[in-house]
Amino acid sequence: MPAAEQIRAAVLRYLDTVATGTSADIAALYAEDATLEDPVGTPPHAGRAAIEEFYRPLDAVRTTTELLTVRIAGNSAAFGFRVVTETGEQTVTVSPIDVMTFDEQAQITSMRAFWSPDDIEPR
Amino acid sequence: MPAAEQIRAAVLRYLDTVATGTSADIAALYAEDATLEDPVGTPPHAGRAAIEEFYRPLDAVRTTTELLTVRIAGNSAAFGFRVVTETGEQTVTVSPIDVMTFDEQAQITSMRAFWSPDDIEPR
Repeated sequence: MPAAEQIRAAVLRYLDTVATGTSADIAALYAEDATLEDPVGTPPHAGRAAIEEFYRPLDAVRTTTELLTVRIAGNSAAFGFRVVTETGEQTVTVSPIDVMTFDEQAQITSMRAFWSPDDIEPR
Repeated sequence: MPAAEQIRAAVLRYLDTVATGTSADIAALYAEDATLEDPVGTPPHAGRAAIEEFYRPLDAVRTTTELLTVRIAGNSAAFGFRVVTETGEQTVTVSPIDVMTFDEQAQITSMRAFWSPDDIEPR
């Protein structure tokens, strides 16, 4: 099991990479056979290629992220954060709570994002 | 699937019952075959009787709760909250993030609590 500090660092690295990296950079933080369910209740994406595809739209927008709160338990983290995307025409803010699990190397093995359209603030 | 507003109401009812009800009252909010994992990474408690047993220590202390944030997705909620317990000698504050799933009647079918000893503030 990764140490709590490794998990905390992995969460921060994830948010930093969502803000500054490419979809390939983000996918590289996931284990090869990881799963991603965003939002919870929709069909999961399985495997790093599908996960990279999921993040592809971020390559075309400017994104900033901010960690609001994080709780670590076992091999898992639950964290609230804010993500702001700017397309030039529109700025959209959404503040999900994500749950992630991690392997020994603190690679993400699963991600589940809790949010609904009610949590999106267009500006 | 319960509606988002039913889930939100169930989360508030849960926190209110943790603060004001007995362990039996809290267990009654769970489905008969529900599971509870608190904190995440520890062996789950299965079934309403085991869940009531889990909450039993709360019957001996004064407890207040406060919802900090909630996100609803599908049949699930993730929510941050503060729980303060007073034994007379000691006041302990802990602020977990819980993830719950709900059935059609908005009974809790599973609860997983994300927190670690780092998140406990004795006073």
